[in-house]
Amino acid sequence: MVLYQDAGVDIDTAKAIKRRIKKLVKKTFSPNVLSEIGQFGSLYQLTGYKRPVLVASCDGVGTKLLVAAMMKKHDTVGEDLVNHCVNDILTLGARPLFFLDYIAYSQLAKATIGEIFKGLVSGCRNNHCALIGGETAQMPGFYQPGEYDLVGFIVGVVEKDKIIESEKLNAGDVLIGLPSSGLHTNGYSLARKVFFEIKQFKPTDNIKGLKKSLGEELLRVHRSYYPVLYPFLKNIKALAHITGGGFYENIQRLLPQNIACVINKNSWRKPKIFQLIQDYGNIPDAEMYRVFNMGIGMIIFVSKKSLPKILKALPEGIVIGELVKGNFGVKIQ
Amino acid sequence: MVLYQDAGVDIDTAKAIKRRIKKLVKKTFSPNVLSEIGQFGSLYQLTGYKRPVLVASCDGVGTKLLVAAMMKKHDTVGEDLVNHCVNDILTLGARPLFFLDYIAYSQLAKATIGEIFKGLVSGCRNNHCALIGGETAQMPGFYQPGEYDLVGFIVGVVEKDKIIESEKLNAGDVLIGLPSSGLHTNGYSLARKVFFEIKQFKPTDNIKGLKKSLGEELLRVHRSYYPVLYPFLKNIKALAHITGGGFYENIQRLLPQNIACVINKNSWRKPKIFQLIQDYGNIPDAEMYRVFNMGIGMIIFVSKKSLPKILKALPEGIVIGELVKGNFGVKIQ
Repeated sequence: MVLYQDAGVDIDTAKAIKRRIKKLVKKTFSPNVLSEIGQFGSLYQLTGYKRPVLVASCDGVGTKLLVAAMMKKHDTVGEDLVNHCVNDILTLGARPLFFLDYIAYSQLAKATIGEIFKGLVSGCRNNHCALIGGETAQMPGFYQPGEYDLVGFIVGVVEKDKIIESEKLNAGDVLIGLPSSGLHTNGYSLARKVFFEIKQFKPTDNIKGLKKSLGEELLRVHRSYYPVLYPFLKNIKALAHITGGGFYENIQRLLPQNIACVINKNSWRKPKIFQLIQDYGNIPDAEMYRVFNMGIGMIIFVSKKSLPKILKALPEGIVIGELVKGNFGVKIQ
Repeated sequence: MVLYQDAGVDIDTAKAIKRRIKKLVKKTFSPNVLSEIGQFGSLYQLTGYKRPVLVASCDGVGTKLLVAAMMKKHDTVGEDLVNHCVNDILTLGARPLFFLDYIAYSQLAKATIGEIFKGLVSGCRNNHCALIGGETAQMPGFYQPGEYDLVGFIVGVVEKDKIIESEKLNAGDVLIGLPSSGLHTNGYSLARKVFFEIKQFKPTDNIKGLKKSLGEELLRVHRSYYPVLYPFLKNIKALAHITGGGFYENIQRLLPQNIACVINKNSWRKPKIFQLIQDYGNIPDAEMYRVFNMGIGMIIFVSKKSLPKILKALPEGIVIGELVKGNFGVKIQ
């Protein structure tokens, strides 16, 4: 006699997990969540917008998850994920409405799933976002025991006439960089290769120049720029979230025809972790700026005129470059 | 010298894939997709609703993906996923607006990714749903070469006063079952164990009683009930999509207090594939109805009064049970 459980899937445990999660996620709810009705789907009532445009994005945490597994610390990757998604839709002027998660694993302790949800809930609360649904999928034979994939979907909203359109960018506009908290969620395959394969470090190692252990440095939470930037959006011409593809791809896709970008790489101090990766891996400069955020997690594009006002409001902002006439794309010098 | 590519991540190939996908997904766009602006997020303008309630759901394909890998056939799992998500939000009265996908892999042929997208695009077109975004994530070391995970996220909309609320269900209401096309996307871990481990079949084997090869039978596309059901929603009191958790969990969560459900399991003919799984695996009846759809992919709950009208409009519908007073949940007899 074969039961589903013998095939590696445990419906009863899944039910127990669901019950526990339900309580936790309620902390993220607003009156717009019509959750008492939600069954196969989650209900969110959209109110207060004249010409609402929904802004959606999907992301994973990538192999930062493997660092979390090495450190046996699973209560921050959820926050990484939510913040990453929130930043993505913020670049279009949107504020978050709701979030759904997907967790897939083959064998995972109930406690680990609880930890993951702690991070998700905390990320959602910090960004005024309701965690209204998701899927926790047990897939026997797909993942190593103790490993999992974690994916997030976000939906936000913006009034149609408030969408941030990069088409308005022009020569003379200035780039203001906002500090990142660390690697955020990009470049972990390369960073892990350098630290743990080439240099054979352990995540608990302390490396000179780092304030925390290597693992803790690598797990620093992806910063959300929503709290500081959302109130200033009307003064901003465009936003580039420096994620996969680094400075090149994430700026390039914003540039109108005949507008190019020059970045002065000496305008800000790189956090030590990036220098270590580059030195230990003997990685060319261009590759570093293509893969990592190099200490700048979000770039704001503003007109020269509004620059003083913005810098006053955001004292952590650093002028890192400008837009010029040309078709050479992004030049880092 | 180490490059990102040496760590197993190839940004250039990822870019090439993105370009190809972009063309394909445009086929799913409606004028509501403001895609020419979309950069870090995807924009969808919501129009035509007075009190719009967004309905969101997230799902994976599960280990049906492993059958697709065995069959080297990847152009239908996308359709499985879209249809599954569409059915989920349909149970609340919603029509689909847009869809985002997540594909994660370690090593995967570009052609395979193209095939997956073919299925996603076709699923979205059939359900009048725009495929507006997603994430294709290369995660070295996570997945077996040639394997991938595929996740979908859907957002639909319903007018607040048209939400299907199961609270109105009452003793005397009738259950109408609509045929499934096969296993849909549930119970594959158990089915694979029975066919490929216990019975050592190959997916190309032909088994007596099955119209197609075993692999083809298992890959039959999850049916979308949106085209046949959406026009009739106003006559329907509730809908149960028979997915993970089978008849028990998916009906149970709809039942109001003091209302129970009796299903007559002899009222419909079970497709051969379910009988084979049960016989080969010596699986108890209750477990079969807890894991599989048993040939009924969607259950409609209607009042006795509207039964004749519904059956006339949906000639494939079969009366499979009724609601009664009681607290025993779901009884299958």
